[in-house]
Amino acid sequence: MRGIWLENQQVTLKDGLPLPQIVAGEALIRMRLAGICSTDLEMTRGYYPYRGILGHEFVGEVVEAPGDPSLAGKRVVGEINITCGHCRACLAGRPTHCENRRTLGIHDYDGVFAEFLKLPIRNLHLVPDSLSDEQAVFTELLAAALEIQEQIQVRPGMRVLVVGAGRLGLLIAQTLKLTGCDLQVVARRQAPQELLDQFGIRWITPQDISAHMADLVVEVTGSAEGFALSRQAVRPRGTLLLKSTFAGDVSLNLSAIVVDEITLLGSRCGPFAPALRLLESGLVDPLPLVSARYPLAEGFAALEKAAEPGVLKVLLYP
Amino acid sequence: MRGIWLENQQVTLKDGLPLPQIVAGEALIRMRLAGICSTDLEMTRGYYPYRGILGHEFVGEVVEAPGDPSLAGKRVVGEINITCGHCRACLAGRPTHCENRRTLGIHDYDGVFAEFLKLPIRNLHLVPDSLSDEQAVFTELLAAALEIQEQIQVRPGMRVLVVGAGRLGLLIAQTLKLTGCDLQVVARRQAPQELLDQFGIRWITPQDISAHMADLVVEVTGSAEGFALSRQAVRPRGTLLLKSTFAGDVSLNLSAIVVDEITLLGSRCGPFAPALRLLESGLVDPLPLVSARYPLAEGFAALEKAAEPGVLKVLLYP
Repeated sequence: MRGIWLENQQVTLKDGLPLPQIVAGEALIRMRLAGICSTDLEMTRGYYPYRGILGHEFVGEVVEAPGDPSLAGKRVVGEINITCGHCRACLAGRPTHCENRRTLGIHDYDGVFAEFLKLPIRNLHLVPDSLSDEQAVFTELLAAALEIQEQIQVRPGMRVLVVGAGRLGLLIAQTLKLTGCDLQVVARRQAPQELLDQFGIRWITPQDISAHMADLVVEVTGSAEGFALSRQAVRPRGTLLLKSTFAGDVSLNLSAIVVDEITLLGSRCGPFAPALRLLESGLVDPLPLVSARYPLAEGFAALEKAAEPGVLKVLLYP
Repeated sequence: MRGIWLENQQVTLKDGLPLPQIVAGEALIRMRLAGICSTDLEMTRGYYPYRGILGHEFVGEVVEAPGDPSLAGKRVVGEINITCGHCRACLAGRPTHCENRRTLGIHDYDGVFAEFLKLPIRNLHLVPDSLSDEQAVFTELLAAALEIQEQIQVRPGMRVLVVGAGRLGLLIAQTLKLTGCDLQVVARRQAPQELLDQFGIRWITPQDISAHMADLVVEVTGSAEGFALSRQAVRPRGTLLLKSTFAGDVSLNLSAIVVDEITLLGSRCGPFAPALRLLESGLVDPLPLVSARYPLAEGFAALEKAAEPGVLKVLLYP
């Protein structure tokens, strides 16, 4: 089969890759649509050593699932952490922190930028008929946005600032708007500013940020500069939630964190079921975030496109 | 009057300082006993630019309080933040984060290493008769320890690690023991190890720390090395609470915070009333922490003593 292969930070389109071999509990899935995420781009820059098929955002159709034959032919999305089920984190109900986890297209488990993929059956979620593939492919990213509200209570009276208006930032903003909170998004470029206008969400520029302006700041730039802006904006006893990974270390004044009693909180993968519910209800609309569509055969160009400033979601069709 | 004066990081014993001049709402207080805190030592090293009388831990006797004459002759301890009462933080019920605050012996308000001091009446708490001065002088530090449980819920089933067994660490350990949690304290030196044995609290050495061993880690060393140990010990989705200020910036891998979904939380001043209750009930015993007693006239020697490795609380008598 055809797939996009990452090895030594080199991306190549490969034909003749073997079909994924499933073991007990796994399903073989035909890829219908995949999405390119910032993590994929960071991996091509060496963020994490990985050798295999890239990609983790997908919608697919189950070809074969011996453990649950009723799944055959069904449209699915899938959680990306392949867990052991018996380590301390798994047994404590924190499977996304499984100590032995492999991660789809990220760590020790082939990803979704290919004609076929596999995943454990327990990772799969059926896609409601009312959702298009292009909506459903946002499930994983929207779940990551919802992880924020799994971790902290976003109260309606809060002043909330989202720093960063890219793919993830715009989805996060849509989920936070649903709380009724006093929401603003820091957006530098015209395209996301126009999208935010369309969503009815207020935006400001970095120059508009003032000290202590927010009870909760969500950092989605993954840059030291974005972190510094976020740190400035959060009020004493406020929360600074980190939603993006950062390249390298960031230097931090921990005394100021102590004196201001700031909460700094990292946030990663989230729950799929509520993401599918919000997509189905139409309360979150990801479609305006689609910037471009490519066939898998042009995967290299698709990755280059996704890395361009201001480009939002780039989709890959098999 | 006599007092210990800090100016340009130089400590001097001064005689002939003017008596504190009280304004409406303030009380004039005769110092009965004061304690030397790590913050005092850091200030003599330039942690914060300050010119005035040093010190903020005290027990005193009210000489005069025109706003509440019933206070005269009463024994009191006092909260150290002098607040405006009308800024956003004050009005939101976060007076310790008052935007216009002055701080006793730390910022723009003369401290307690003197024969007399002043404080707003609303900062004062009566000391129960059953408490000795040497117990009551720990109220401020114990309140800071209790701030942890104002901020987060320490559940009985948690594995908790306190990194640092100095003045504050030992008080924190005593308060956390009361929750029934699975508590261990990292102690390097023999003296705090013996005190922990006496308190019935388990201790380990830095070499015994293993990755992900604790749900909650309380960092009380204020050193980059202590921070690194703490970071290593906290499990994914765990909390690392910072209870000490740090000199300079610390370099931090924020991506690891995101991937492990760690909560990093700063913690400062806490509530006096519960601290007095725990002292009165005897559930917290600070007296074994007293290392030395000096007269105010030997304040310089007292500060040097408090800075010696392994020395716990040094007290100053007027």
